[in-house]
Amino acid sequence: MHSFTYRQQHLHCEDIPVRTAAERFGTPLYLYSAETLRDHYRKLHAAFRDFDPLICYSVKANSNLAILNLLVREGAGLDIVSGGELFRAKKAGCPAEKIVYASVGKTEEEIRDALEYRIHMFNVESIPELRRINEIAGEAGKRAPAALRFNPDIQPDTHAYITTGKKETKFGMDIETVRHTLLNQGEFPHVDFRGIHVHIGSQITDALPFQRTLQKVLELTEHVQSKGIALSALNIGGGLGIVYENEQPQTADDFAQAVAPVLRKINLPLILEPGRFIAGNAGILLTKVLYVKDTPAKRFLVVDAGMNDMLRPSLYRAYHEILPVEQKKSEPCQPPRPADVVGPICESGDFLGKNRTLTVNEGDLMAVFGAGAYGFSMSSNYNSRRRPAEALVHEGKISLIRKRESEDDLIRHEQMVP
Amino acid sequence: MHSFTYRQQHLHCEDIPVRTAAERFGTPLYLYSAETLRDHYRKLHAAFRDFDPLICYSVKANSNLAILNLLVREGAGLDIVSGGELFRAKKAGCPAEKIVYASVGKTEEEIRDALEYRIHMFNVESIPELRRINEIAGEAGKRAPAALRFNPDIQPDTHAYITTGKKETKFGMDIETVRHTLLNQGEFPHVDFRGIHVHIGSQITDALPFQRTLQKVLELTEHVQSKGIALSALNIGGGLGIVYENEQPQTADDFAQAVAPVLRKINLPLILEPGRFIAGNAGILLTKVLYVKDTPAKRFLVVDAGMNDMLRPSLYRAYHEILPVEQKKSEPCQPPRPADVVGPICESGDFLGKNRTLTVNEGDLMAVFGAGAYGFSMSSNYNSRRRPAEALVHEGKISLIRKRESEDDLIRHEQMVP
Repeated sequence: MHSFTYRQQHLHCEDIPVRTAAERFGTPLYLYSAETLRDHYRKLHAAFRDFDPLICYSVKANSNLAILNLLVREGAGLDIVSGGELFRAKKAGCPAEKIVYASVGKTEEEIRDALEYRIHMFNVESIPELRRINEIAGEAGKRAPAALRFNPDIQPDTHAYITTGKKETKFGMDIETVRHTLLNQGEFPHVDFRGIHVHIGSQITDALPFQRTLQKVLELTEHVQSKGIALSALNIGGGLGIVYENEQPQTADDFAQAVAPVLRKINLPLILEPGRFIAGNAGILLTKVLYVKDTPAKRFLVVDAGMNDMLRPSLYRAYHEILPVEQKKSEPCQPPRPADVVGPICESGDFLGKNRTLTVNEGDLMAVFGAGAYGFSMSSNYNSRRRPAEALVHEGKISLIRKRESEDDLIRHEQMVP
Repeated sequence: MHSFTYRQQHLHCEDIPVRTAAERFGTPLYLYSAETLRDHYRKLHAAFRDFDPLICYSVKANSNLAILNLLVREGAGLDIVSGGELFRAKKAGCPAEKIVYASVGKTEEEIRDALEYRIHMFNVESIPELRRINEIAGEAGKRAPAALRFNPDIQPDTHAYITTGKKETKFGMDIETVRHTLLNQGEFPHVDFRGIHVHIGSQITDALPFQRTLQKVLELTEHVQSKGIALSALNIGGGLGIVYENEQPQTADDFAQAVAPVLRKINLPLILEPGRFIAGNAGILLTKVLYVKDTPAKRFLVVDAGMNDMLRPSLYRAYHEILPVEQKKSEPCQPPRPADVVGPICESGDFLGKNRTLTVNEGDLMAVFGAGAYGFSMSSNYNSRRRPAEALVHEGKISLIRKRESEDDLIRHEQMVP
């Protein structure tokens, strides 16, 4: 479900005409729906209610403070992957005991800060990291709460760049290493071993890879528990797919029902880490058509948003639906012709969509759908472009939740040499 | 040529041990050599000295103010592609008459500002853009200086994303459109038609595609000149390749000699737009090994620089040489094993190099070579990571030319809703 719908041919975000947001804050603009964010959070929570889950929203998907704060107020925890995300989690008011921290490259400073803040747990990705955490906790006179990230060597059907549960990826530890470590946890006296973390990738649309993963987790937990090891957490990560084009992803309920039997057998307090599932379809990127460029080979709709604003099409060849904000019938460019929607950046990799049939003209607004996750959070200043503004529709109002950057922002911290 | 060399097994930037820069400013750190930047500029200028060229450095390659200023003081002009780059060009002290402005998506505001600043010329990419420029110039009571960007439909042997001279790309106009427009320039009374711009792509290592392009340009200029059209500029763009791995790119002299005959026939004042050629090998990215992670399938060197700091390996599958800063013999991880050099970012696309044989251990510094162009300029805050610092070695000193971002920088301009 999402709250971007046409009413009398005008695209609305909840009850607000999208055009209003563009007029007020300019383009390119990220526009989010609070209702959609909340709805996705609540649906997932409800689907797993039998397990009383801690749902830790994955900050990297969309890390705007207003969005984090909105979800925290709903009861969400946060899944962080860096010191910068810990900083954001604090600013957004997230209780320390609802923060989980994954990343293959935690620095000493990051580990120290997270320990100091008393986060819920570290998702530990390797033995060298575990040693580092043990050392730092020892020096600080603390015990570090930890789940071991288990790499189940499962291949979900998604883009190679967002597959994280195959053994050739840098993530987690193989089953032997996890088992051995849990059974020999005395080697790490400053670590409080709480449980298992798995995360097999992102944008996964069916339950089978999750079921196969959890079956392996069950074997693992039964084995170590039979040897007297106590566990108190199972973190099943994120990865739930959403609709970008014509995917038919499982609903939260489908997913919960498919994995409930094995979760009941594992029988541990449950953590989930959804990112895209909550934020992906809760946002659009608004952009204006600058030029309709017809060449002998192709038509190009040159728009004012580029790969610096939205990297996914270029980096992952990701499909995003692009539609006009006004479905008016008046004077589209003639003759109709499929067009590449391209940005102003000086490389051919700068496109938002290819071969789209769109009845728009210069000056028209378009919406790029599914832009709520991995949109702004991957944006850059490439070509010295100022990063876009972000706005949120909530309770009948639009609020600017991130101001457009200024030219001075571009050169902040730079200095010439005499 | 570049100024990163080993002396007694320690990597130096000019006369400064690279380790000194890392100790002083931390990692990840971009480190540039002023000597190398100047050397590349001077070599290119010398190679084309018979043509008295205006060399407009391509700001998008590396837009740090200190680097722009250094090149401007050498006599360079600047090739810009956005309002933000115009802002930088002004700050860096570039004379307006040495600025050329390309981009398929110039906004009205950008055109107005550039016209106001009296830049040398616009590289015009389409007829709709030409109309827009004509209108805006008319309203401002000015004449807009312009070169028409000619798309020669030439395929250089480079990555598809940085190919820009094929007819299927969004850049420039086909030969018929350019010819017709030059012959009917009365339709655009507020445009001062100065000449032709071509730019066929980036990282091109041999002269043939340039020669074929210029041959087409010659036919074009001869034709329109025979009809009485006066021309005063030929901008041949950039695209000269550099060494990343085992390429054997043409030198500046080779290139100049290969294209000199046709340039003499065209016989127009010459502009070049080098970016990577000047900055690419003038910079390294310094990073520290956080963890050596051995798995049954692979070894990973987890370092403190990620795809947010350096996107090229992930986006273009670009190869960058990675070497230890200290070539010491002491205690590398045993047994030696080829390793993927990966960052801390939570996706499998986050790597700097694959299957590298490196004798390093945790805590060691490594240098990613060829990071001077399209390195920092494509960086982002993905995973809420603070963008790295940049430092420049010049005349025996190291200067910080961009301070590392702070945590507060991450959330600047954001605000929660009540």
